[in-house]
Amino acid sequence: MNNFELHNPTKLIFGKGQIQKLKEQLPKKAKILLVYGGGSIKKNGVYDTVKQNLSEYSFVEFGGIEPNPQFDTLMKAVSIVRTEKIDFILAVGGGSVIDGTKFIAAAANFRGNPWDILAKGTTVKSAIPFGTILTLPATGSEMNSFAVISKGNEKLAFGHPILHPQFSILDPKITFSLFDRQLNNGIVDTFVHTTEQYLTSSINTPIQDRFAEGILLTLIEEADKVMKLKDDYDSRANLMLSATMALNGFIGIGVDQDWATHQIGHELTALYGIDHARSLAVILPSLLRIQKETKKDKLVQFASRVWNIPTTDSDTMIEKAIQMTEDFFENLGVPTKLRFYKIPKQDFPKITDAINKHFSGSLGENQDLDKTRILQILEAAY
Amino acid sequence: MNNFELHNPTKLIFGKGQIQKLKEQLPKKAKILLVYGGGSIKKNGVYDTVKQNLSEYSFVEFGGIEPNPQFDTLMKAVSIVRTEKIDFILAVGGGSVIDGTKFIAAAANFRGNPWDILAKGTTVKSAIPFGTILTLPATGSEMNSFAVISKGNEKLAFGHPILHPQFSILDPKITFSLFDRQLNNGIVDTFVHTTEQYLTSSINTPIQDRFAEGILLTLIEEADKVMKLKDDYDSRANLMLSATMALNGFIGIGVDQDWATHQIGHELTALYGIDHARSLAVILPSLLRIQKETKKDKLVQFASRVWNIPTTDSDTMIEKAIQMTEDFFENLGVPTKLRFYKIPKQDFPKITDAINKHFSGSLGENQDLDKTRILQILEAAY
Repeated sequence: MNNFELHNPTKLIFGKGQIQKLKEQLPKKAKILLVYGGGSIKKNGVYDTVKQNLSEYSFVEFGGIEPNPQFDTLMKAVSIVRTEKIDFILAVGGGSVIDGTKFIAAAANFRGNPWDILAKGTTVKSAIPFGTILTLPATGSEMNSFAVISKGNEKLAFGHPILHPQFSILDPKITFSLFDRQLNNGIVDTFVHTTEQYLTSSINTPIQDRFAEGILLTLIEEADKVMKLKDDYDSRANLMLSATMALNGFIGIGVDQDWATHQIGHELTALYGIDHARSLAVILPSLLRIQKETKKDKLVQFASRVWNIPTTDSDTMIEKAIQMTEDFFENLGVPTKLRFYKIPKQDFPKITDAINKHFSGSLGENQDLDKTRILQILEAAY
Repeated sequence: MNNFELHNPTKLIFGKGQIQKLKEQLPKKAKILLVYGGGSIKKNGVYDTVKQNLSEYSFVEFGGIEPNPQFDTLMKAVSIVRTEKIDFILAVGGGSVIDGTKFIAAAANFRGNPWDILAKGTTVKSAIPFGTILTLPATGSEMNSFAVISKGNEKLAFGHPILHPQFSILDPKITFSLFDRQLNNGIVDTFVHTTEQYLTSSINTPIQDRFAEGILLTLIEEADKVMKLKDDYDSRANLMLSATMALNGFIGIGVDQDWATHQIGHELTALYGIDHARSLAVILPSLLRIQKETKKDKLVQFASRVWNIPTTDSDTMIEKAIQMTEDFFENLGVPTKLRFYKIPKQDFPKITDAINKHFSGSLGENQDLDKTRILQILEAAY
């Protein structure tokens, strides 16, 4: 096991009707910026409940945060925070709204050009405190301190411990109004967040391995119910908790982490607008095939414990496990091949150039994914 | 799944040599009370490392916290905190030292008689901030806000969210100098902390179940290595992480919880001085037998997933699982029968009277363990 630190001060408030606890979480007399996305919260009743809870507060609204939240949009909110002297931000939405809020919170107090936080990795020193109400289980942003922000063809990550939400309220009933595409993307996103921390080196981490396998097994068991039963509380609760647990740091302690699937996937989203989760579904299986030697022990464990594949030679077990993972994504309605998106193969060097621009050195838990191997992954994913 | 809140702001710092990070965790210019137990830290080098880290601080020492920390001892430390104007406490030790520190931290700021915190459950409103260096993996106190304090024949629990340690440093190498009895007690304590939250009602909590099973399976796999290999870092690290994860709230979210084994066990410790973990090893198997109808679904799951017992009729599976649990404790060197401690059967009413005094109503996740059933458990445990 590697040395690690785990510090997650976000208060998670989970369950039916928990939005009613919003008021008691907010700092007294705060001037609040209410941030949301495209307006779905006005259809599912969340907006009204939030406004009732804010009745004693002075607040300003900022709607219209888009999927893959855009730097230019967020800078308009930063300007409001400064001119209106906002001292608390309430994010109501999915991962994009929460990621966007983290950037607004960090940029509002930043001296200099906030673009440097993303492009140069300049360290954030303070942030406007914020809380969230999650409407879409997927990114885990509700209980971590990371965010991904886009500008044109660039999609860049940043993070800092001070960017943990003070609280996050998760009511699984809110997910009843989600579309199929939001749900299957959420399942795939959670699955790949887990494998990025689990399918790496075998360094004797049985607790972390079993926590990760617990999330994967739960996703596999619950997926059908989540997709077919539109108002089944239990399966939505299990999905929502899985998504949070996959990326709140708990399964990542003391293990080697990969994240190459995300790094390659981000460029597919930035260049071609492929949904985040869908970019992961395309890359993961091929990455596992190309990296099957270095990930061998964990892939065999994954085959046995997650996919219940009988013990035989490791190559057969690994290929079967990858195939079952692909089938799982495809059966959810999420394509696993790049050709589905009609990206011409001659674009591959453009993709590797973008990766090279954003990430110095090679990718993966062993830093062994260089340009040649990434091209192999893209070929295999075609 | 039940509604829940999860808020654990303790910073966990885990791994080889991490005590060297102590200095950067301490508040600048704080006057510190250094609290420890019987002096084992002076033999294993921890005391010297801590003192080096405190060289720039003004600090006072308070040693001699005993197992099952005593109210009267702790009140002497409270007096020092007040007269010396201590503003940070550093606990170096196992669960007793950390539990004792929580009481010192709470009592020092308490207006009125601090005994009321324990005996009347009076709410704590503020506490001296504190951090810990854990030397013994067992109680989980290093990453939660609960404590158990003793006075004469009374052993009483209390807790408050403000009593989370600010940080806890866990170096598995510190455990190399522990005695067998400390290690096997720690394994049993961790096992029973987990079953108190896992072997309850089946209310569709697959994530929590698998996290709990992950801890139990890890304990079963690692126990032999922990006991036989005196300097095996990995098995000690896995035990230490298991102990923290078993009682930091992560596996307890959204599930029904029992704790009757602890409540009965505490009286055995208070009345007869039986080690905490040993009191649990005596009570758990018999409690599971008496409660096998209400815990049926989870006991079958426990038999199958934790003890790998082939599927047959539930009664056979459950009895086999309980038997294997007893064998696990006995093979570690921890007795599972009350007669080992030579407690006369005619004392049983005294034990149930003590339980009745400390816990109003019946015990267990369904509040169905009344005096009659507790007597049945004690009889079965004889």
